[in-house]
Amino acid sequence: MTTTAVQYGIGPIGRRIVQVATARGIDFVGAIDIDPEKVGQDLAAVANLDTETGVTVTDDPDTALAEEPDVVFHSTLSDVTAITSQIEAAVAAGADVISTTEELSYPWYHQPDAAAELDEIARENGQTVLGTGINPGFAMDTLPAVLTTPCQDVESVQISRVQNASQRRKPLQEKVGAGLTEAVWEEEIAPEAGHVGLPESIAMLAAALDWDLESIEETIEPVVVETRTESEYFTAEPGDVAGIHQIGTGYVDGEPAIELDLSMFLGAENPRDEIEISGTPDLHVTVDGGFHGDVTTPAVVVNAAPRVQSGRPGLATMIDLATPRFAERP
Amino acid sequence: MTTTAVQYGIGPIGRRIVQVATARGIDFVGAIDIDPEKVGQDLAAVANLDTETGVTVTDDPDTALAEEPDVVFHSTLSDVTAITSQIEAAVAAGADVISTTEELSYPWYHQPDAAAELDEIARENGQTVLGTGINPGFAMDTLPAVLTTPCQDVESVQISRVQNASQRRKPLQEKVGAGLTEAVWEEEIAPEAGHVGLPESIAMLAAALDWDLESIEETIEPVVVETRTESEYFTAEPGDVAGIHQIGTGYVDGEPAIELDLSMFLGAENPRDEIEISGTPDLHVTVDGGFHGDVTTPAVVVNAAPRVQSGRPGLATMIDLATPRFAERP
Repeated sequence: MTTTAVQYGIGPIGRRIVQVATARGIDFVGAIDIDPEKVGQDLAAVANLDTETGVTVTDDPDTALAEEPDVVFHSTLSDVTAITSQIEAAVAAGADVISTTEELSYPWYHQPDAAAELDEIARENGQTVLGTGINPGFAMDTLPAVLTTPCQDVESVQISRVQNASQRRKPLQEKVGAGLTEAVWEEEIAPEAGHVGLPESIAMLAAALDWDLESIEETIEPVVVETRTESEYFTAEPGDVAGIHQIGTGYVDGEPAIELDLSMFLGAENPRDEIEISGTPDLHVTVDGGFHGDVTTPAVVVNAAPRVQSGRPGLATMIDLATPRFAERP
Repeated sequence: MTTTAVQYGIGPIGRRIVQVATARGIDFVGAIDIDPEKVGQDLAAVANLDTETGVTVTDDPDTALAEEPDVVFHSTLSDVTAITSQIEAAVAAGADVISTTEELSYPWYHQPDAAAELDEIARENGQTVLGTGINPGFAMDTLPAVLTTPCQDVESVQISRVQNASQRRKPLQEKVGAGLTEAVWEEEIAPEAGHVGLPESIAMLAAALDWDLESIEETIEPVVVETRTESEYFTAEPGDVAGIHQIGTGYVDGEPAIELDLSMFLGAENPRDEIEISGTPDLHVTVDGGFHGDVTTPAVVVNAAPRVQSGRPGLATMIDLATPRFAERP
């Protein structure tokens, strides 16, 4: 049986989800976006597919969801409270939902009311709702959790992720403030808190290990370059900002038990994901080059399709669903 | 609620399971072993625990299982057909079972009849049965499967595991033929096929990715040393055997899609687990030092306790249960 899907939100990430899902044999039966330039077009034109799909992009969710898709791929906003009604419409139409809304990857700690509401809506409709992506969703939470499986004891987990922003999409480079002066960066970028998701990853990892999380601290600072550094879109002159360095720390029993260190800036050398577990045994795992965000997020989303379809109704996390992996026929 | 357990088999691995589980707060209510030297002793004496448990080792499974444990940790033999009645007794007593029987990690490909029988017995009794350990069970199957999660496409998976046998327990060193002449090794070790589990890992990984596995090839050869190499227990003189080199290959669409390369020998330098995924994107992941088998197998087993207790009845695999991870309170 071919899985049918509706794409809800066709921005840079949504477009890639459509491409990856189509390549894997998923059949799109609807597409939703509010952008007037996309509405009325064939999904193929908006998502850069080679062949027409016969699916017209609409700004009316009900029209698209009336096609009763098996799955809705959802990629609109970062805030859970902003997307509750969108998720509700999808599950009411009988679809399981996979969303890239960062806060949805683990809303139970920071947004317990919204989480409980979404969980109830999903259960009532017998559908599974999952928030995921490469980060939050995999690199700094699910994978480190899996890597603790061979441990007799775990004292702390340190995760370091270095992404070369030059290799990422333009909006990502913009989001980290590439090419801004420090003054402008402090005014415009710092209050926006850069990457969204470190607190969610910390809360998810703590819950996965059954740890009682006491508090979370988060810091963000600019990465300032000494030599001119440029990408396809931006240039950072000496003294300018090339990107961000964020640290999230989760405290358990008064100790910094979970430390997430994330750097995304133009020209970052030796991009990688590094996971260090202090315990019995100590473990040190390196992903050479790191998981490239723009390539891997749509894959994580599409590969989750079989798992949400067989998952228990409710608001799920990457941890309580079946073990994540590539799906040849999602 | 404290989880109660019975240990079924108190050999080198079973003993470590008892140690790790006790340290994590699991309450042993029974212990089974056929060794007359162990029967009648307190479990603490047999498993090298500091304090007496009040649990007497028995050779009568029914006596131990009458305590109605939540979980049975099972560690007796490698062959599925040899342990069916043991598993049956455990699930009939109302226990979920976690076993280190290598073939049980994924018996569906090689032993479909035994797998179906065990699945039926487990379902009838409403219990979950899982075969696991570090290898098979995690290093060369579950972890590589999880690492494909961020992939848009996967062409092949190459896994290389190098263990320094000098750091492993004596029976393991014996099993790989450390210190034997090549002639004796060819006669005694080669027919025993060294490490048990490569075909199971290949079949499990193929199933996880939804690949149609056509065939499996397995080779084993001795690792011969040029210089004298010794461990606590054995010495390999120049020209003697220090251990084994095994390769398992799984074919999909006529291509070697899964390649497992395992070396275990005295004095192996740079022990490690290396996972290489050819796909979109390519991934290269290294676990420095590798997962030490004797330390990690009992951890993988104990950490699975919450997952089998909440899992669906039947014969499960590491893939279809919830995402594996360390359990602070198993």
